Amino acid sequence: MLNVYLSGEIHTDWRDRIVAGCTGLEVSFLGPVTDHAASDDCGVAILGPEENKVWHDRKGAQLNAIRTRKGIMDADVVVVRFGEQYKQWNAAFDAGYAAALGKSLIVLHGPEHAHALKEVDAAALAVAKTPEQVVDCLRYVLTGKLPGRS
Amino acid sequence: MLNVYLSGEIHTDWRDRIVAGCTGLEVSFLGPVTDHAASDDCGVAILGPEENKVWHDRKGAQLNAIRTRKGIMDADVVVVRFGEQYKQWNAAFDAGYAAALGKSLIVLHGPEHAHALKEVDAAALAVAKTPEQVVDCLRYVLTGKLPGRS
Amino acid sequence: MLNVYLSGEIHTDWRDRIVAGCTGLEVSFLGPVTDHAASDDCGVAILGPEENKVWHDRKGAQLNAIRTRKGIMDADVVVVRFGEQYKQWNAAFDAGYAAALGKSLIVLHGPEHAHALKEVDAAALAVAKTPEQVVDCLRYVLTGKLPGRS
Amino acid sequence: MLNVYLSGEIHTDWRDRIVAGCTGLEVSFLGPVTDHAASDDCGVAILGPEENKVWHDRKGAQLNAIRTRKGIMDADVVVVRFGEQYKQWNAAFDAGYAAALGKSLIVLHGPEHAHALKEVDAAALAVAKTPEQVVDCLRYVLTGKLPGRS
Amino acid sequence: MLNVYLSGEIHTDWRDRIVAGCTGLEVSFLGPVTDHAASDDCGVAILGPEENKVWHDRKGAQLNAIRTRKGIMDADVVVVRFGEQYKQWNAAFDAGYAAALGKSLIVLHGPEHAHALKEVDAAALAVAKTPEQVVDCLRYVLTGKLPGRS
Amino acid sequence: MLNVYLSGEIHTDWRDRIVAGCTGLEVSFLGPVTDHAASDDCGVAILGPEENKVWHDRKGAQLNAIRTRKGIMDADVVVVRFGEQYKQWNAAFDAGYAAALGKSLIVLHGPEHAHALKEVDAAALAVAKTPEQVVDCLRYVLTGKLPGRS
Amino acid sequence: MLNVYLSGEIHTDWRDRIVAGCTGLEVSFLGPVTDHAASDDCGVAILGPEENKVWHDRKGAQLNAIRTRKGIMDADVVVVRFGEQYKQWNAAFDAGYAAALGKSLIVLHGPEHAHALKEVDAAALAVAKTPEQVVDCLRYVLTGKLPGRS
Amino acid sequence: MLNVYLSGEIHTDWRDRIVAGCTGLEVSFLGPVTDHAASDDCGVAILGPEENKVWHDRKGAQLNAIRTRKGIMDADVVVVRFGEQYKQWNAAFDAGYAAALGKSLIVLHGPEHAHALKEVDAAALAVAKTPEQVVDCLRYVLTGKLPGRS
Repeated sequence: MLNVYLSGEIHTDWRDRIVAGCTGLEVSFLGPVTDHAASDDCGVAILGPEENKVWHDRKGAQLNAIRTRKGIMDADVVVVRFGEQYKQWNAAFDAGYAAALGKSLIVLHGPEHAHALKEVDAAALAVAKTPEQVVDCLRYVLTGKLPGRS
Repeated sequence: MLNVYLSGEIHTDWRDRIVAGCTGLEVSFLGPVTDHAASDDCGVAILGPEENKVWHDRKGAQLNAIRTRKGIMDADVVVVRFGEQYKQWNAAFDAGYAAALGKSLIVLHGPEHAHALKEVDAAALAVAKTPEQVVDCLRYVLTGKLPGRS
Repeated sequence: MLNVYLSGEIHTDWRDRIVAGCTGLEVSFLGPVTDHAASDDCGVAILGPEENKVWHDRKGAQLNAIRTRKGIMDADVVVVRFGEQYKQWNAAFDAGYAAALGKSLIVLHGPEHAHALKEVDAAALAVAKTPEQVVDCLRYVLTGKLPGRS
Repeated sequence: MLNVYLSGEIHTDWRDRIVAGCTGLEVSFLGPVTDHAASDDCGVAILGPEENKVWHDRKGAQLNAIRTRKGIMDADVVVVRFGEQYKQWNAAFDAGYAAALGKSLIVLHGPEHAHALKEVDAAALAVAKTPEQVVDCLRYVLTGKLPGRS
Repeated sequence: MLNVYLSGEIHTDWRDRIVAGCTGLEVSFLGPVTDHAASDDCGVAILGPEENKVWHDRKGAQLNAIRTRKGIMDADVVVVRFGEQYKQWNAAFDAGYAAALGKSLIVLHGPEHAHALKEVDAAALAVAKTPEQVVDCLRYVLTGKLPGRS
Repeated sequence: MLNVYLSGEIHTDWRDRIVAGCTGLEVSFLGPVTDHAASDDCGVAILGPEENKVWHDRKGAQLNAIRTRKGIMDADVVVVRFGEQYKQWNAAFDAGYAAALGKSLIVLHGPEHAHALKEVDAAALAVAKTPEQVVDCLRYVLTGKLPGRS
Repeated sequence: MLNVYLSGEIHTDWRDRIVAGCTGLEVSFLGPVTDHAASDDCGVAILGPEENKVWHDRKGAQLNAIRTRKGIMDADVVVVRFGEQYKQWNAAFDAGYAAALGKSLIVLHGPEHAHALKEVDAAALAVAKTPEQVVDCLRYVLTGKLPGRS
Repeated sequence: MLNVYLSGEIHTDWRDRIVAGCTGLEVSFLGPVTDHAASDDCGVAILGPEENKVWHDRKGAQLNAIRTRKGIMDADVVVVRFGEQYKQWNAAFDAGYAAALGKSLIVLHGPEHAHALKEVDAAALAVAKTPEQVVDCLRYVLTGKLPGRS
């Protein structure tokens, strides 16, 4: 069984495509809460409101960190996706966190981000451009089978 | 002696201001190579040219990682600065790396980045807005003295 | 599966309320022996009597430590409850122990203890006032669902 | 050289008595900021005011944690003093933190706290009643000399 | 589930008595090979004969170490039994090995060995005189039940 | 259950012989991808072609490292086989990697390599000449039974 | 600089012979308190008397453990000497402790103990018969010089 | 100060060239004993002769391991050189050992070994062809200066 944590961008269907592509493989996936509103508000919704936005955010980020840490610590492989928008510093933070723990890192991004992500890619064992490449990596790691070969 | 690693943005004088402000304190500072051109080209300049920009970058990023890892591993405190420009994913990566190693993290950024950096700030023991606040933090940690108090 | 250790106060029903509230979630709970008399006397009851109360207590505390350490080491999340009475230094000790091991810490106490517990709260990822808030935290961490939202 | 961290109660002269008693020994002492007002206000004094007392405390406690963590991590021996007043949960937290890191723990308290501190004492390698006993322990550990013997 | 490694003396039925006494408890037991002849000769029997008794012993001891290390590393609790005969240095070695890994240690021996074992006992969380006391410890740790109490 | 990683030479049937010989034992085997062509080309086949053979190899070696690291980290025992041909530096690298992680190491090679492998053998707990000897080691470690004894 | 901890037998001059033999080498030696009476009584002499010999011994053994742990943790090499008399279980305990921490172990004993110490020797990187052999080992490790060769 | 361990081939002057090239830099170098005869015979020369060549080699390799482990554990950077002759499995073993400990790895070899060393190179942060490139890497890591630039 390979435990895989899917970190990063939450606005496209890349997680669904990886999970669907891995049907039949012994992979267990974890990832962050991808409901953006819930993720932003979870701290104050549960632990009480804050007037100051900074503490509103702090409460939420720390509550989400319980899930994120568990997911990364339990993982054999951490896939980190950088999308086209936003700063996505939490994705890069997760990548650094995973690297320091010795997790195998797969980074997923388009070529337009290659230079800006060179330090992150340099810590990775694979740099993929599409979710399907990540699926092929995971299948190969588990079964030794390459795409298009029987 | 407090070992401090100064990670992140290399285009303003924030490192100089922190180092100058800590004159007389038992602090030892380390940080990345801040000559942008040297940092980008070091891999190919030393280990031979690459036609493909991706490998040009990879060689440089990995060589720089020798310095960065040493600096973070030896540090008691890691200060990570996010400036106004660029993606700065390497700064967030360093923050995650430092957090996973249990280093004390101080994040330095303007209020405009507060929401985007909420996960990074949530892992920090101090969030500063100016280099002078970082200096005051380090002086207090080492001496117990607050600014403006004798 | 999330392993949760419930440390601290043993005189109210807070553990029962958390366990009941988490019905249906993939959570496994561990905690100390909550039979106060058994917990105090276990050492001498099993390993032989002591005339000196200090050694009576030592034998019991060390035997209980076998359970406590196992519970904290196996945990993903450690919830530490501070009640209204007693010194409860063992609860704070467990919190420090869990923090040093990198466990996610949730502290549960009333607002009257906020100042006295500020160092413990500062090491936590969530500070709750009621057992129900802890339940909501655990449910959110596991399912991404917020209370009162479908 | 033995590195010793002196944690806990800040209202009596126990640290001074230990430091003075160890004159001539190869011991290096560290401890928290013992200026109570500075320790309480450091966060807001440096990083900006907070209306809510909880965040006022949080900022201070986290800034103090930079010093505390450094002191405990660098220590060979952690001495934790419990005085007669206050909850002193931070002292018990430090004891748990030190124990989990495998540091040698010496607990210092009067007999009236023996039962309430039994879990903390059970993790210690020495339980002392006076600062002078701590001095005698440190001298013996370093030199093999017992008090009153040449 | 509590993983318990039973180290030490192999000439009496103490392991059987502990295993039998724990019937119905969620305990998993491991221990060394207790067939003395097999344990002594395993190295040369499998990997080829040695003329020199030192290497005969070395081959066997290293092969046995595969089992011992696995058992101790997987254990939550290590019980070490010292009997009346022989040097039993391997038992004390296992105790030290377990202690350094942070395992909970229970030492089992008669009062005649108390002084000679004081350093080993000082690293333990329980010192038992009979296998039945070990059973009572394990039952209490798992269930909170004391012997003779319902 | 004993987790065993079978590292090294991929041109003979030694893995099959070990797996077959361990039928009926509680052993779980992992190993590298043994399809030489797939192993060499996996990086470029999945993540895109490279003109430079060095980067062709790098991509493949790093993708294979995801599997290798997982296998070694999860293992209790790492068996490393050195055959008659090739440099087999990856086998020696795996042996060093496993040794540094504290894994029990069994080295398998013919006597002609004994001198050249003396540093690797010196880190091992068993040095076998045939796959059948490895089987006998694993059976003994799990069951205490020696070959040819009932 | 090589840090060496000299553990075990305290009744002969083996430590003096090793220290003298290493004159001129960059070695720093640590060891236990070798004053037998002080070592036995240190706990009660400093922390107060005990009627029960078991607790008398416990207090002393735990106080001595502060020194022993520091010495072993700081060491690169741990030399453990087994003499002709006594059980010396603390020596074997130290050996196990050092081995689990990954320290390089040198065992020093006469051939009459070879069989009884086979598990300890099997964890060592050198087994010496005389203090002078230990000196030669340390000189070789530091300088590459063999005895009798220029 | 950067601690560098120079592992591998001992028949050419590559170590001397690196040490000479780093004159003036804050680098401390360690490496194995490079006197081939002493390295092969050290075990039996100090600890007594062996008839069987396997144990002759074992004694020597384990004694050398005291130096090698110390050197690698203390290092920030491990440089591993593969020359043109011999199996050099100990070099690859050191590389794996260093990689598992998270050391920064620089591999030094000619292009003819690139394919055979692809797994080792894939774990490295720099792959150099000449000792002078290693010098340039170390100077850049320490000073940020590139060769031929002022």
